[in-house]
Amino acid sequence: MNMLELIEKKRDGGVLDTKEIEFFVDGVTHKTIPDYQISSFLMAVLWRGMNDRETADLTMAMAHSGKICDLSDIPGVKVDKHSTGGVGDKVTPILLPVVSSFGIPCVKLSGRGLGFTGGTIDKFESISGFSTTVKPEEFKARIEKCGMLLGGQTEDLAPCDKYLYALRDVTGTVPSIPLISSSIMSKKIAGGADAIVLDITCGSGAFMKDLKSAEELANSMIAIGKLAGRPVTCVLSSMVQPLGAMVGNILEMQEVVATLQGQGRPDVIKVVTTMACEMIKRTPQGRGKSDEEIIGECKKKIESGEAFSRFGDLILSQGGILDASGCPIYVDEPFEVMTVYADRDGYVSRCDALEIGEASCLLGAGRMEKDDVIDMGAGIRLSKKVGDKVSRGDALFTLYTGSKARVSDERVDEALMKMDGAFEIADEPVETPKEILGVIS
Amino acid sequence: MNMLELIEKKRDGGVLDTKEIEFFVDGVTHKTIPDYQISSFLMAVLWRGMNDRETADLTMAMAHSGKICDLSDIPGVKVDKHSTGGVGDKVTPILLPVVSSFGIPCVKLSGRGLGFTGGTIDKFESISGFSTTVKPEEFKARIEKCGMLLGGQTEDLAPCDKYLYALRDVTGTVPSIPLISSSIMSKKIAGGADAIVLDITCGSGAFMKDLKSAEELANSMIAIGKLAGRPVTCVLSSMVQPLGAMVGNILEMQEVVATLQGQGRPDVIKVVTTMACEMIKRTPQGRGKSDEEIIGECKKKIESGEAFSRFGDLILSQGGILDASGCPIYVDEPFEVMTVYADRDGYVSRCDALEIGEASCLLGAGRMEKDDVIDMGAGIRLSKKVGDKVSRGDALFTLYTGSKARVSDERVDEALMKMDGAFEIADEPVETPKEILGVIS
Repeated sequence: MNMLELIEKKRDGGVLDTKEIEFFVDGVTHKTIPDYQISSFLMAVLWRGMNDRETADLTMAMAHSGKICDLSDIPGVKVDKHSTGGVGDKVTPILLPVVSSFGIPCVKLSGRGLGFTGGTIDKFESISGFSTTVKPEEFKARIEKCGMLLGGQTEDLAPCDKYLYALRDVTGTVPSIPLISSSIMSKKIAGGADAIVLDITCGSGAFMKDLKSAEELANSMIAIGKLAGRPVTCVLSSMVQPLGAMVGNILEMQEVVATLQGQGRPDVIKVVTTMACEMIKRTPQGRGKSDEEIIGECKKKIESGEAFSRFGDLILSQGGILDASGCPIYVDEPFEVMTVYADRDGYVSRCDALEIGEASCLLGAGRMEKDDVIDMGAGIRLSKKVGDKVSRGDALFTLYTGSKARVSDERVDEALMKMDGAFEIADEPVETPKEILGVIS
Repeated sequence: MNMLELIEKKRDGGVLDTKEIEFFVDGVTHKTIPDYQISSFLMAVLWRGMNDRETADLTMAMAHSGKICDLSDIPGVKVDKHSTGGVGDKVTPILLPVVSSFGIPCVKLSGRGLGFTGGTIDKFESISGFSTTVKPEEFKARIEKCGMLLGGQTEDLAPCDKYLYALRDVTGTVPSIPLISSSIMSKKIAGGADAIVLDITCGSGAFMKDLKSAEELANSMIAIGKLAGRPVTCVLSSMVQPLGAMVGNILEMQEVVATLQGQGRPDVIKVVTTMACEMIKRTPQGRGKSDEEIIGECKKKIESGEAFSRFGDLILSQGGILDASGCPIYVDEPFEVMTVYADRDGYVSRCDALEIGEASCLLGAGRMEKDDVIDMGAGIRLSKKVGDKVSRGDALFTLYTGSKARVSDERVDEALMKMDGAFEIADEPVETPKEILGVIS
């Protein structure tokens, strides 16, 4: 077997067998296949696709390219959660304490943000002292102690995926459903999850721009899950506008706190409880209950303050600092740069997630390149969203930077231009977009 | 401009502009674009194709990536010739002396063989002392002296093409019409040709397996020629069976000599005179003459011995050695391994060029990998070809190695198996295949 034959087979529309895919993953992992062959192969995969069996083989081979976390002697069903990313996506820091308050062990491996979508790891790192560096061998002890764990992807888990992910980023081979789904699923499987609930975001601020491609990605991951023996549920959620009101690291954590303190926006509550319900249904704690019952219980966990208390436990267990009221202490604080007001009466008809995410990035909240330093205080607060009635003079949004204000005036101007393009106000009433577009499993 | 954008544009089916293509060629030539980006781009080009303007831009940019030979002060129209390669393709060593005997200056830049098709350079190097190392700055003096030149591709001419050619070979990105045609045409243009006649071989032993793809390649090169201001003529020739009777380096040169001495097989004469006619038509020497007249004159140049004498001049001018009768002295001599005889009466219905080329390679006549040493004496002599009547016991073919017989018994067995698959004998008479399938310009 040699790599050239594999490239030619895929290029000509062939289906690779399990041994061929294992040969490829092994060669990538042990660096015996040169990058130029990997990248022409990846482009051929993007072109020709992979069937479910090939994708599952790729997933399992990548999962086994490094350590596999064995969480089998932790009692309970370990359900992992993943989002394909979005703007203002603060689901994980709310979801984890809610699910954990049912007594369900939660391991969440997250990534850093690149481009306009924020990364969960970055958001947690806006809390003073919080560390996401957890080795796979420590997972068990951490979960036994706190019931929850929030870790970054380590070198040890699915190293082949890590290598391919970086190469795809610079070779134009990112937007391929089998490559995306195998990348996500390999990490989940290596992380030791028994079942997986995925939030497939869909809209301008997400990777999948339309419902059709979101469903295609969902079906691919469900198929991999079936072949790998790990049940997968996909929640399709809308990302035409940002989730909630806050975009940016500290700003989003502030919204997390407010939500866990009972002042959550309905859209955030809707996505969090839908995801929580799908996770809980997979465990003994959810058995025999209807969706409505589980969602009702989730809301009670928030209203009672139990979830907020679990949130504090997670912060403390990973080295973070809380103040006397149980709220996190941050590395910086958001500094208000300016607020923009509506110049007419009407209804918000557009509040574009992509442009708002890019504006937030320009202010310093995200990375434009891999080694950029994030300004934790930077971001945007939305005072109005699609469907909201506005009167001339109402605040529309506020721009923030960190208190040390490292961002240049030019960048602020650019961000304002993006925001200008992001908002539209119509004369006629506009419907509030649905948050959940479907659940597939 | 950055390479990732170019990859994504082509991946998504876009058309690159001239500046973008020049950026790519410049980056390849100066090694500022990493191989992994070049190869994913090449696969995207293979997938999405290039229009004629893009292909012409790529051709011209590659031609200008190194030195351009300026032959303008050599009087006459300089016509270059190229073949897309085949088994037993000995056209160049016959064609060059024939055309030269009309007083037409001939510069021919050739390649080495890789895989089942032989290379013209290798064939000439089977002659003791013959050197194909000619620098572009020596071209003019050589042509003034002898009227002909046979050179190998140097580092100086179209270095970008040389780099891409090697990368395509190992990344599964060879079979792309715009990449093939721009590769050939860039070298011809850098070599200083005023007009170009191409032999597009077609059939199992050629790169283009069917007439449709051969015509597609021909049309692509004609279009490039139009945009580059160099008229291109394409002769489509059949490569379902080898050309002539001999396959292998010394064996083929022996057939060249026999042909120039007036004992040529009709198929060899047909292809050589068709190519010669198209070349001569482009020059003042062919003006006002019909194809039949030119072809008649070509045959006379052979019958009179004039072409054979020019052949001797070429050999001598590049350091080769001739014996008293004007025939080349070779570095080795073919040693007969075995002859295989027909086991039944009938008509040869198959004499497959690909399998015969591969068998010849196995005997040592070609390279399986780039650094293999060629056995100049190895090869195959075909005693019967498609359409020939055979009687049980007639010789079908003979296998040869060099006199030092370095080839293993296993390789000879493998070659015999290939030859067994290459030949078929039918009961009913079979038509002799047409050598020329068409001429397009």
